[in-house]
Amino acid sequence: MSIVGIVAEYNPFHNGHLYHLDQARMATGAEAVVCVMSGNFVQRGEPAIIDKWARAEMALRCGADLVFELPFCFAVRSAYNFALGAVQTLDRTGVVTHICFGAETPDLPLLQQIAFILSEEPEEFRTRLKALLDQGHNYPLARASAVSSYLSYHTRTLDPNQVLTTMMGPNNILAIEYLRALRETKSSIVPVLVPRVGSGYHDTSLTSYASATAIRGAFSDPNWDKLVKPYLPSPSHEILLREIDQGKGPVQEKHLEPVLLALLRRMTASELAAIHDITEGLEHRIKKAARQSNSLIHLKNLVKTKRYNLTRINRILLYVLFNLTKTRAASFDETGPAYLRLLGLSPSGQKILLKIKSKCRILLINRVKTVNKLLSPQSHPVARDMFDLDVLATDIYSLFFAEAQRQGGRDYTVSPIRIR
Amino acid sequence: MSIVGIVAEYNPFHNGHLYHLDQARMATGAEAVVCVMSGNFVQRGEPAIIDKWARAEMALRCGADLVFELPFCFAVRSAYNFALGAVQTLDRTGVVTHICFGAETPDLPLLQQIAFILSEEPEEFRTRLKALLDQGHNYPLARASAVSSYLSYHTRTLDPNQVLTTMMGPNNILAIEYLRALRETKSSIVPVLVPRVGSGYHDTSLTSYASATAIRGAFSDPNWDKLVKPYLPSPSHEILLREIDQGKGPVQEKHLEPVLLALLRRMTASELAAIHDITEGLEHRIKKAARQSNSLIHLKNLVKTKRYNLTRINRILLYVLFNLTKTRAASFDETGPAYLRLLGLSPSGQKILLKIKSKCRILLINRVKTVNKLLSPQSHPVARDMFDLDVLATDIYSLFFAEAQRQGGRDYTVSPIRIR
Repeated sequence: MSIVGIVAEYNPFHNGHLYHLDQARMATGAEAVVCVMSGNFVQRGEPAIIDKWARAEMALRCGADLVFELPFCFAVRSAYNFALGAVQTLDRTGVVTHICFGAETPDLPLLQQIAFILSEEPEEFRTRLKALLDQGHNYPLARASAVSSYLSYHTRTLDPNQVLTTMMGPNNILAIEYLRALRETKSSIVPVLVPRVGSGYHDTSLTSYASATAIRGAFSDPNWDKLVKPYLPSPSHEILLREIDQGKGPVQEKHLEPVLLALLRRMTASELAAIHDITEGLEHRIKKAARQSNSLIHLKNLVKTKRYNLTRINRILLYVLFNLTKTRAASFDETGPAYLRLLGLSPSGQKILLKIKSKCRILLINRVKTVNKLLSPQSHPVARDMFDLDVLATDIYSLFFAEAQRQGGRDYTVSPIRIR
Repeated sequence: MSIVGIVAEYNPFHNGHLYHLDQARMATGAEAVVCVMSGNFVQRGEPAIIDKWARAEMALRCGADLVFELPFCFAVRSAYNFALGAVQTLDRTGVVTHICFGAETPDLPLLQQIAFILSEEPEEFRTRLKALLDQGHNYPLARASAVSSYLSYHTRTLDPNQVLTTMMGPNNILAIEYLRALRETKSSIVPVLVPRVGSGYHDTSLTSYASATAIRGAFSDPNWDKLVKPYLPSPSHEILLREIDQGKGPVQEKHLEPVLLALLRRMTASELAAIHDITEGLEHRIKKAARQSNSLIHLKNLVKTKRYNLTRINRILLYVLFNLTKTRAASFDETGPAYLRLLGLSPSGQKILLKIKSKCRILLINRVKTVNKLLSPQSHPVARDMFDLDVLATDIYSLFFAEAQRQGGRDYTVSPIRIR
């Protein structure tokens, strides 16, 4: 009996996601689909367009059986830590047998080979990477090129250009990181590739399988609801409209602006230097830009470099907002996901949940009221700190809603979504 | 030869201020008027409606000769510390001979007697005050009542009700604090009372001498410019319109909302407990309210108590925003105003400035570019910290302007206003 895991953001849940979910179930013959999903902030370093419960409900009404939250401290991280946190979450359920993910290049052996190099970092590869970085290439390209050189030299059969192109596909990058995470955690979960359909990850045009980016872009249009409708499964469209009608979205990057600009002007360079991924004097660059700039976009353009691209800067700004320090990030990475936070379940998910209860290797947070008991700061300091960060993410996120919806503490009051 | 000092906020500069300025000059026969004025945040714990340079310009064009900035750490404090900081600033110029202030009750001997009690705190007074507070009275009333009992008992000639009423007038309260500050700093500056004309301090109606509160209230009306015109001297009206036209105002309390709500949710109770004037577990009250409330008004209503009234909560929220900790406030109070920050001058102010240069007992900050040299963190740690707080106040304040005006660092680029 197999249970398939999916790592997702569903920001929002669209036709491509539905296709992938169906394929995952079919390709593995799984009796259930378990999703691990980003919470209110996503891996690009942005707030999600609607909140985590609404996005979990979309997934459930489109065929998922269980949706767990990927803790903030893994969701808003580099592809490596995101994938590692997600794979560990699935692994720690104790019941997931397969993981299914999309890729632009559905060539599992090739992706495995690349994952192996990135994981093992052979001497030759590291020397080449360093040389390319020293020549001034940006990191993703230098890394792809170093892997490509290594593989084409050692295997002789691989076309270096093919390796290079493969490593530049955004879904391939994540796929490689999932494979690497499975390898590094010695997980017995079996990886299954599903070819992608439709638009690329970054594509902003609305085609039949429009990307989530394109769909989010439509919100600047007054007729957005009609514009996005063809690209969303009907439950997803319905939930999106309902949430926005209730004043709970669309949450956008612009909502971060007043808070972040004030916070960055307020913080000292040494406070910034304590934040995760702020290194090499970036704190001074940020301080200077915070003073000079009159908008968040202006600030980011002043701060970004080849090494710190826009997405990385976006994530760093969230680390600043949520005070994710180097110390905290290190303790979270050492522990890995410390709990399974249930966001929602289907009737068949209920049965899987019972199985998870008996087999899972970490705390299962199901009824929200038990959290304070389960996760006391004394008995579980790291887990509690990890959870408190998720709570803060929701509490800040709620401030971007319409005024009547801005109260905090939702993590303690909203129960997991149950669909019939 | 006399030079008269005025303590003001000019938020904005109105007919009543003009009257007071003229009276101050006449009553003292002064050759010049030196103002010490709040910067971008005022004693009620709010941002000023337009920035400090524009307000200084209003004063200069209406007859002031020199305008110095009262550092943030004194401007946004209780009446006692506000008055003390302002009186010390005037005293440290080395040239101010008189201080002129308004009062609802123009009875200098009475106000002096009250100031004496508050300063000396005789045993009998303290016992009575404690008893009244224990009975649940709020602090201002308990204090007024204890002074009243003490004075009427010891002088026999004073009507207790008169003392009580006197101590409830907002301008009387400040007047008493100026007298107390003169006494406690052993200043040789001579106090001169000018009776107030027109509306009370808190009055919200627009009468011929409308209060600044009433004028600020008019900004919610689309025809505000016409509405406020009769109550402002024409240079003041002109400057107000110009600033707002340039996107530099009106800055209002609502601008603080997104930043404060996010900051309060983000900060821990122990971080809050380190902030000045947060005592007796108020940090927990604030944390709880920050989670529950969906607006700043909602939050303040949840936090306020008899002891912590709305104005005090407003100020505390600014201490939070600007990280004015107990330690910093104590070091600032110990030092007192560490520099004379010039905001603007008239041609005759120029002559007084030369005199101040030779006589003043603290650093004179005139040309902004010399600040980094004059106030190095090594040679003047407290003064530099005090100045950095003023700079931060401006940098956060600028974020409440229209986007094109949001750049920071104005304290280093705007020169003192010179009028002809």
